[in-house]
Amino acid sequence: MRDFTFYAPTKVYFGKDKHKEVGAIIKELGYKVIMMQYGKESIKKSGLYDEVMKSLSDSGIKVVEMGGVEPNPKLSFVREAIKVAKENKVEMILAVGGGSAIDSSKYTAAGAANDCDVWDFPTRKAVPKKSLPVGCILTLAAAGSEMSSSAVITNMEENMKRGFNSDFNRCKFAICNPELTYTVNPYQTACGIVDIMAHTMERYFTNCEDTILTDRIAESILKSVAEAGKVLKENPCDYDARATVMWASSLSHNDLTGCGRDNMLPVHQLEHALSGEFDHIAHGAGLAVLFPAWAQYVYKYNPKRFARFARQVWDVTETDDEKAALAGIEKMAEFFAFLGMPLKLREFDICESSISRLAQLCTFNRSRVVNSYVELDFEKIEEIFKSCY
Amino acid sequence: MRDFTFYAPTKVYFGKDKHKEVGAIIKELGYKVIMMQYGKESIKKSGLYDEVMKSLSDSGIKVVEMGGVEPNPKLSFVREAIKVAKENKVEMILAVGGGSAIDSSKYTAAGAANDCDVWDFPTRKAVPKKSLPVGCILTLAAAGSEMSSSAVITNMEENMKRGFNSDFNRCKFAICNPELTYTVNPYQTACGIVDIMAHTMERYFTNCEDTILTDRIAESILKSVAEAGKVLKENPCDYDARATVMWASSLSHNDLTGCGRDNMLPVHQLEHALSGEFDHIAHGAGLAVLFPAWAQYVYKYNPKRFARFARQVWDVTETDDEKAALAGIEKMAEFFAFLGMPLKLREFDICESSISRLAQLCTFNRSRVVNSYVELDFEKIEEIFKSCY
Repeated sequence: MRDFTFYAPTKVYFGKDKHKEVGAIIKELGYKVIMMQYGKESIKKSGLYDEVMKSLSDSGIKVVEMGGVEPNPKLSFVREAIKVAKENKVEMILAVGGGSAIDSSKYTAAGAANDCDVWDFPTRKAVPKKSLPVGCILTLAAAGSEMSSSAVITNMEENMKRGFNSDFNRCKFAICNPELTYTVNPYQTACGIVDIMAHTMERYFTNCEDTILTDRIAESILKSVAEAGKVLKENPCDYDARATVMWASSLSHNDLTGCGRDNMLPVHQLEHALSGEFDHIAHGAGLAVLFPAWAQYVYKYNPKRFARFARQVWDVTETDDEKAALAGIEKMAEFFAFLGMPLKLREFDICESSISRLAQLCTFNRSRVVNSYVELDFEKIEEIFKSCY
Repeated sequence: MRDFTFYAPTKVYFGKDKHKEVGAIIKELGYKVIMMQYGKESIKKSGLYDEVMKSLSDSGIKVVEMGGVEPNPKLSFVREAIKVAKENKVEMILAVGGGSAIDSSKYTAAGAANDCDVWDFPTRKAVPKKSLPVGCILTLAAAGSEMSSSAVITNMEENMKRGFNSDFNRCKFAICNPELTYTVNPYQTACGIVDIMAHTMERYFTNCEDTILTDRIAESILKSVAEAGKVLKENPCDYDARATVMWASSLSHNDLTGCGRDNMLPVHQLEHALSGEFDHIAHGAGLAVLFPAWAQYVYKYNPKRFARFARQVWDVTETDDEKAALAGIEKMAEFFAFLGMPLKLREFDICESSISRLAQLCTFNRSRVVNSYVELDFEKIEEIFKSCY
C-alpha cells in the first residue's frame, strides 16, 4: 500500500428536500453576500430556483446571480464572474447544478481571492494561496466535483480544456437531493454513470498491489452503480437507484477509491482533449468510447488486475486471466452501449483526420506523456484514438 | 435510503514515518503551544516519544506533557488535564496513542474551551459550543476515534462509562503509520479488530433496507479486516495487513458505513456497562463476547439481513436464510475465538450475580431502552448477558 493523504472535508447533506435548508446552512456558516452560479433556465422551470431563492431570502442572504454556465464551463464566463464577485464583495459562491456549475464556481472562488489570472492555475503558472468558500446544490450525479479537489475549465480561444487540483477546490458543503436528478434525461444520466465509473476505474487500474480494502470499496461502487444504471433505464424516478448513483458520484472522486494507490486519470486526459476540441461532445460520452479502447490497449500489461475487475464487478466466471480480462472489458463496453452511449468516435460526427490533432492536444504538443499503467506518448495515444474511431 | 449528513473533515496522513512530520503539520496549522497526551511509558521505550518530540521541537512548538492516560480513560485525569491546559494556554491537544489517548484529549479539548464541567457533556446536561482542536498520532487500530465524532470516558466515582457525539470531536488531523502497531500484542490486536468489526456491524444491522452501496462498503471492510486478522496472527509485522486494519479502523467509525442507515450502536451500549463496571475488561474483548450473543438474540427479527452478512462476509453457501444467518454468527464467533478472544463472560472472572447490575447500568437504572433491531429493555438485556455468561 502506498502512503497517502486523505482529506474530504465537505459536509454532505443528503436526502429529500435538503436543498430547502440551503439558507439556514449558509447562515450558520456566517456568509451574508453570496454569488449563485447556475446553468440553463431549467432550474426555473422545475421550481428549484424559486425554492432555493426562498430559502436564501428567508435567511436574509443577499444573492448575486450568475446564470448561464455552459457544459464544459468557459474561461470567459469565469473571468466575468470573478469581476462581478469582486465588485459585489461576495463572501462565498453557491453552485446550483452539476460539475459545470461547480467547477465554474471553484475557478471563480479561486480567481476572486487571488490576484493573478485564473488561467494561471490550470496552466501551472501559479498556485492558489487562498480561495472563497464554495457550496453546491447538486442536480446532476456525474463529475463528483461536489467532494473532489479538482476543477476543469475550457479556454475557447486556445481550444484547451484543463484542470487543476487543490484542497481549496473542496466544497465547504454539498447538498445532495437525489430527487433533483429525476428529470435528468437518459443520455445525461448515462454520461454521469460513465463518468462516475471512470473516476473509480482510473484509480483502480494503476500499477499498485496490496490495497485490498480500497479495491473492494471501488468494486462496491462499480457494481452498485452498474445495477442502479439498469434500474434507471426502466424507471428514472427510482429514488434508491438515483441515491446510489448520487452518493457514488461523491465517493468516486473524493479520493476514497484511490487510498494507497497511484493517482492518475489517463482516460480523463484523453477525453479532455476530445471534448476540449469538440464542444458538442459530452464528457461522459467521450469517456464511454475511450475507456474500453484504453483498457483493450493496456490490459495486457497486467491482465490479472483486469481479470479481478471482470470477476468482481461483472460476474465473469472465466478462469483464464487473459480471457477474463477481455470479457470484463467487453461487458463494460456492452453496459455503456446498453445505457445508450456511443461505441465509436465516428458517432460524434468528427473526421478521422482530427485524431492526430487530439493526440497533440493530449500531449500538450508532444511535451508530455500521459502516465498510467503504461506511459502513453503521442504515438500510443494516437493508436488508442484510432482503435475506437 | 434514509437521509443523512456525512462529515469527516479529519485530514489523514497515512504511511511509513508519517509521525515524523507532526511538527511541520502543526506548525502549518499555526499552533505554537500544545498539550501532548499519551498512555504508558511504552512510547518512550519504542523510541516514538523521542521522534515525536524532536519533530515538534524542530518546528519550534512548545509541548505541555500529560502522560499516564489509562485504558478506559478516566474523568479525573481529564479534569486535571483541563486545569493544566488552561493554565498553560494550550492551543491544541495532540494525542499519541489509541482510542483512550484520543478520547481523553477530546474531553480535555472540550473542557478547556467551555465553562461547564466536562462530565455535563456525556450526561447531556450541556452541549459543547466550541472546542480546542485535537490531532493524533495513532498507535493502535481499534476505536476509530481518529476520525469519529464520538468520545467515551469513565467516571470511576459513579462506575459509569459514557460517551457523547459532536462534530467538535472530529480530529483536525490523524497521523496513521501502520508500522507503529507492529508491537501491539496479539490480544490487543484482536481487541482492535473486534472493535472495528463491531463499529461496522452495528451500523450494518439496523432495520433499513435499500442501502446497497453502504452495505457493500461495510462488507468490504469486514471481509478485509477478517483476512488481515488471519495474516497478523501469523505475522504481526505484515505491513499491508496492519495498514488494512488501521485504515479500516478509521473508515469503520467515520460514519461512512452508516450512510443512509439508522445510526445506533446497541452492543457498544451493552459493552460500556460491562467495562465501565469492570475496569480490567478490554472493550474489544467485551464486544467479542457480547456481539455473537446479541446477534443470536436479534437475528430472527430479520434473518435475511444476517443471511446476507453470512454469505458476503463469511462465504457461507447455505441457501436457507435462517440457517445461513446462524452459520454466519457462528463463523464470526469462531473468528473471534481464533484471534484469542474469550467466548464467555465468566472468562473475565466476574460473578453471574453481577448481570443484573450490568443490565441496570446499561439501562441507566431502567430509565431507557437500548434502541436497535429490536428495542432492548432491562429484561432483554439481562437475557443477552445471561446467554453469554
